[in-house]
Parts: sequence; structure tokens; C-alpha cells
Amino acid sequence: MRSTAEIIAIGSELLTPDKTDTNSLWLTERLNELGIDVKLKTIVGDDEVRLEEVVRDALKRSDLVITTGGLGPTEDDITRPVAARAIGRKLVYRDEIEADLRERFRRWGREMPEINKRQAYVIEGADVLPNPNGSAVGMLIEINRKILAVFPGPPRELKPMYDDHLHPRLVSEAGKIRAKRRVLRIAGMGESAVDEAIAPIYKPYKSVETSILFNRSEVEVHLTAKASSEVDADHVLNEVTEKICKEIGSAVFTTNGESMEEVVGKLLIERQTTLSVAESCTGGLIGSRLTDVPGSSGYFMEGVVAYSNEAKIRTLNVPRETIETYGAVSAETASAMAIGMRQRSASDIAVSVTGIAGPGGGSAEKPVGTVYLGLADKTGARSIKLQLPGDRYLIRWRASQAALDLLRRHLMGKGHETGAAR
Amino acid sequence: MRSTAEIIAIGSELLTPDKTDTNSLWLTERLNELGIDVKLKTIVGDDEVRLEEVVRDALKRSDLVITTGGLGPTEDDITRPVAARAIGRKLVYRDEIEADLRERFRRWGREMPEINKRQAYVIEGADVLPNPNGSAVGMLIEINRKILAVFPGPPRELKPMYDDHLHPRLVSEAGKIRAKRRVLRIAGMGESAVDEAIAPIYKPYKSVETSILFNRSEVEVHLTAKASSEVDADHVLNEVTEKICKEIGSAVFTTNGESMEEVVGKLLIERQTTLSVAESCTGGLIGSRLTDVPGSSGYFMEGVVAYSNEAKIRTLNVPRETIETYGAVSAETASAMAIGMRQRSASDIAVSVTGIAGPGGGSAEKPVGTVYLGLADKTGARSIKLQLPGDRYLIRWRASQAALDLLRRHLMGKGHETGAAR
Repeated sequence: MRSTAEIIAIGSELLTPDKTDTNSLWLTERLNELGIDVKLKTIVGDDEVRLEEVVRDALKRSDLVITTGGLGPTEDDITRPVAARAIGRKLVYRDEIEADLRERFRRWGREMPEINKRQAYVIEGADVLPNPNGSAVGMLIEINRKILAVFPGPPRELKPMYDDHLHPRLVSEAGKIRAKRRVLRIAGMGESAVDEAIAPIYKPYKSVETSILFNRSEVEVHLTAKASSEVDADHVLNEVTEKICKEIGSAVFTTNGESMEEVVGKLLIERQTTLSVAESCTGGLIGSRLTDVPGSSGYFMEGVVAYSNEAKIRTLNVPRETIETYGAVSAETASAMAIGMRQRSASDIAVSVTGIAGPGGGSAEKPVGTVYLGLADKTGARSIKLQLPGDRYLIRWRASQAALDLLRRHLMGKGHETGAAR
Repeated sequence: MRSTAEIIAIGSELLTPDKTDTNSLWLTERLNELGIDVKLKTIVGDDEVRLEEVVRDALKRSDLVITTGGLGPTEDDITRPVAARAIGRKLVYRDEIEADLRERFRRWGREMPEINKRQAYVIEGADVLPNPNGSAVGMLIEINRKILAVFPGPPRELKPMYDDHLHPRLVSEAGKIRAKRRVLRIAGMGESAVDEAIAPIYKPYKSVETSILFNRSEVEVHLTAKASSEVDADHVLNEVTEKICKEIGSAVFTTNGESMEEVVGKLLIERQTTLSVAESCTGGLIGSRLTDVPGSSGYFMEGVVAYSNEAKIRTLNVPRETIETYGAVSAETASAMAIGMRQRSASDIAVSVTGIAGPGGGSAEKPVGTVYLGLADKTGARSIKLQLPGDRYLIRWRASQAALDLLRRHLMGKGHETGAAR
């Protein structure tokens, strides 16, 4: 069984101040599940000498070496020839890859540029891995019982290629899966509050590795259990998960890594409830998140981005006096927006957001980050006020998250308490 | 002058799925300013054999090697002994460092744990770098004209240490060589088409490093020029940029790294034009992107997410017959959505999108990825058809990009040609 892996991320853009390699995080997670440790990660540019040395050294040190990137059609995509050289093999041209590329371009209504012929070269003796999501094929090469896996850089191409071709092979070698992982997501609590609440729960479990992360608007608890079988690992994870959910309750919105919009979507389907959304400061972000979920047309009816006051009055039927008396950013306007949106769309529930995302527009009374959420159903409307920290991007994101969480708690019948977003 | 650097990030936590090394991004930016290229980054765990090899190899390849992390007082902090071994030097005990540590702990009202004595060992011959923000000193060692810099991992300790001790030294060595960077973004052309068109332009410039990247819906061209002064570097960059823009024309939507929504926002302000958006398959994404830009309330009036047919009829005034005759995803419906949106919001221009983002909903005649864009202004409405590749996420993103690009070209007065998104 393989126990050590190295990942080599290739591309000069990954050596700029702006780009970071994220593929390796995903790959590490998948490999760890099989008990394979990633011992080293290298990020190298379009630099033939260094890349060759790195590939050669990695194959000396580790059982499995995965390269990502550098398989594009342009001259600075050097992985094919350099990886071949590093292991002392030739590149060979495969007509069927070229034919496939031509067909792919034809389907897009374009002629294949001659430059793409480069992508039809593969390392001699490699298993060629088809790429349904891009033009670069991948490769698997076994050398002295070690594996060199050559994958494209875009995550959308790499992930299915790993899952379809490398993972099954590693699983069959590994025998029993030794580690399982679970991700709990929590809304409305801060990182330290979560840790304080759950540390006494997870600490006694020596076979469970726990890490707590904060990202934009939610806390994630990652639990990894190692056991001699999948069933045993799942058993321990279930136990810890149940205790955590009992301790912090409905703030846990998923125990299987789903996004907030997926959770809300499932609840809407279960409750056979339709939804519409009236957005001001979030500008369409809530609608965009909700409709990111396949099948959302089953419950999402309509959204309005009422950015200007006139739009609130005209399209959402907010009384002009309400805006004049209380302001566009107020509990009263939020409620009126939700009521107007629900009437317009004839949906069961409408959610609304109005707030000050900044950087301008704040005042002493209503500083940047002041956000009101509204929710209307057949029984009437209510609103809540939030004071969100962060810049424009974070305030908008957190407002969208809080609105979806308000909706979630409402659908769960937990009333309308919502956590103060961090 | 030093021209190449490597960064080695040390710590097993950086090899988990949850943590990523961010120090190197900051260091890269600072080094690039001085014309020093980061050629390789390595992330290695608390693994003596691999770390020793990595440090040794790095010093063979590059003029400057920076290690971060692994200087704590615990057993898994291995950087001190391993770096010493890699360069064949001894560790020496420095009483004054221990005294300083004891004093530091005393100020915190604590006794120094014996374990912290480890932090008083330094590599023989190293310049010791004080750490006002933590207990681990740094080290600078010159070996055969190369520099090995050993820094602590926490960013708030590393950054001032770099700025106070390494940066001034590199500046004085670098003399006048400076590097400047420019990012061009291109819509409506693929990576290979861009490279074919501009390779003859950038290739002759030996002082300019060029890399071409594709991300979601746009191609980026990164140009880095080194010259004896900032003015000279700018001069070369201007020249290359101008030639590229002349060659591929209005497909270049920014030459200074702006996002599409920022570019569109500036054009709307310049042209004193107001905008509204009617979205179906993008579900609010276009509105969300537009309003992500501070000050967008100056031109963005209103958006409607008309997800259901009834919403298109009710709120956008699309004639029921249009939808029944041509379908919700059709040129006719796209135009009618734009006209209805413009009328509702009294904006100068309205843009609309209707399409099939998948995974369901496709047919032989209108497969997943079929998207129609509409644009209405005072002269009337028009529409264009796109066939976008990718999954739901990419189709939605590319549709939003194509809609913004259609708007951009319209505002630039270049008519309504738009590129086929890749």
C-alpha cells in the first residue's frame, strides 16, 4: 500500500503574489481519507530545469507523485515534455486525441487552433485519462512501483479526473478505507464560541482529529476519524456529531458539508413552499446563491433587486411615506419589501434585505454594516436588525447568509431567532 | 544582484486540507518589487530528511532561500537543527538570547519554561535577527554568496523581520533594477487564440516575462518588465500593452487588472447612463456582480430575477404569446425581457439573459448551455444567441460575463458583436 505522496503544482502564475494553489488542499483531503500522507508540496513555475529536478526528486522520495497544471496548449505549458524527460521517456503523438480535440472544438462551433496539437502528445507508456471538462488529457505512469499522475490545473478538470481514475486505483490498493471525514457548518456563532462549546466534546476522542475554521460567514468543524474500518470510523463520527448538535443545536445547519443554499432548498422542497426574494444591498447575491442549486426553479419564483428607492416603491409597492419616514434602510422598509415581494410573486414566503454595505453611505445612526432583514408569510411580516462587521464584500456576503439562515430557521419552525452574524 | 529566490514553508499543519501558506504570497510581492523572482515554493512538514534535502537543493538552485516556520520551542520545531545540518554548520548556544527570553517571559508575568531554551540555539556564523513580536529569533546566513534567511512562521513576526532586516539588504544589493507588473484581461477569445495573436508581439521583448492564464470566462495576460528604473519598466510595458491592444482590439477589456463589472461601471458613469437587468438563468448573478462595485447605486437602478414564466409575464411584461410561441429561452423572449425591464425601471439601458444552465432542462433543439442575451435602449432591442460549454456553475458565470461584455461593447459604441465565450 502507498503511504506517502507529493504534489507538484506547476505554473508561473502560482508564483505571483495573487494566486495560490488550492488543488493541493482538495487532493490532500482525498488522499488522507485513504491513509496516504502528503509529505511535500512544491510550486514551480514554467521553468524546465527546476521542474525536471523536482519531478525526479519527488519520485525518489515518495510513492505517489501528482502534478497539476502546465498541460495547456501554449508554449509555457511545459509539463508534458519535462515530465517525460524527468523519467527518461519519450513523448508520443496520439491521433485519436487530436481527433477528439477537433471534434470538441467543432461542437463549440470553432476551428481547432493548430497550437492545440501539442495536447495530443503523451508520455510513452502512460495510461491516458480522458478529460470531459477540458482539452488537456491526463496521464498515469507507473515507474518502479511508484505512480506519477499528471493532471490538468483547472479544479473542474482535475477533480473528476482524480475521482474517476486515480482514486479507484488507490482505493483498491489501500484495501480498507482507514479515515473518514465529516464537515459540520455552523451559522450565527463565532469561532471561539464554537470551540468553547465543543472542545469538551471532541477532546476525549483520541482517534478523531478536529479542526475549527472560520470562513466569511460560517464556522466549519472538520472531524477526521481513523479506524480499522469505514463502519467504525463512521460510528465514532456519528457519536461526536450527535453530541455537538445536541450542545449547539440549530446553529449547526449541516453535518455533511452542504452549503446554506442547498440546505434551504431541501427544506423548501420538503415543506412544498415557494419563495421570492427582494434585495437591496445584496444586489442579487441571494437570488444568485439560491439559483446556483440545480432544481431551484421548483421553489424559487422571482427576485427583485430594488437598488433605488423608486424601484422599492414601483416594483415592491413600498409606501413612499415608509421610506420618507423611516429611511430605505429600516425595519419598516424591510418588512414592506418582503410584503410587496410576496404579493407580486404570489409565493408562500418572501425574504428581503436592505442595508448599508459601504464603503460610503453610513451615518452615526446607521453606520456601514447596518442591515435589516424582512420575512413575510401568510401570517404577516417581521424584520430583524443586524450590525455586520467587514468590508463591502463581507457585509454583502454575511447579509445574504443571515437572510438564508433566517429563512432556514423559519422553515424549521424554530421561530425567528437568528444568530448575530460575526 | 540576486535574481532568484525560493521559499520553504515548514510545518505539518500546512500539509493538511485546511491550511494554506499565505506568507509566501506576501514575500513574493516584496521580492518581485526588487526584481527578484520566486522560482519555487516548497511546503514541507516536520520531516527531517525531506527538509534537509529541500534546503540543500534550494541553495544549489537559487540565490536567496527563505524558510518560514518551525522555530517554536517544541519537539516538532525542527528548522534550527535541520537547516544547520543542510549547510554543514553547528548550532551554537547564545546566552544573550536565553537572557532575553527569560526577560520577555518575566514581563509577561511568567517563568520561562525550560523547553524554550531550544530557541537560544542558532546556526554558527548567522546574523541573529531579533523578534519583537515573538520568542523565536530569525537568522541570516551567507554561504557562497547565497543567502539563507530563516524566519518564524506567524505573519506578524515574519513581516516586520523581513522588512527590518532582509529587505534593506536586498535593496542595497539590487541597486536600481526594478520590476513592474501589468495584467490585461480579455473577453470573448480563448487562451490559444490569444496566444497565437500576441506571441509575435511579446516574444521579441526579452526583458518582459509574459504568462497567459484562463480563468472561468476570461483570458489574463500577465506582463512583468524588469528595467533599471520604474520609468523604464513602465515604458516597455506601455509599448507591449499598446501593441497587444492594437492587435486584438476591444476584446481587451482592461489593461490594469480591473474586473469586468468595474470596467462596465466606469463606462456607465462616463456615459451618464443608467442600467437595469432582467435575469433568468443567471438568477441574480449579474446584479450581484454589478453591485459588488462601490458606487454602483449611481447607475444600477433595478434588477428582476424572473425565474418563472409567470414572473416574466407579470413583472417584465413579456407577452404570454411570445413565451408560448418561441419558448422562455428564445431570442424573442430575451428581447421582450429587456424591453419590459427598461420600461419598468425607466433606465437608459436594460440587459437580459435567459438560458438553460442545466443539468436538466435541455433538449435536442436547445441543449444545456443555450443562452440568449437581450439589450434594449431607446432605439429598440436586439438579442444574441450563445452556446456555452461547462457545467451549471460555469454556464451561469459565462452567461453573466457575456452579458456584461455585450453591455461594455455597446457602451463603447463598437456595436453588438460579442465573442463566443469559451
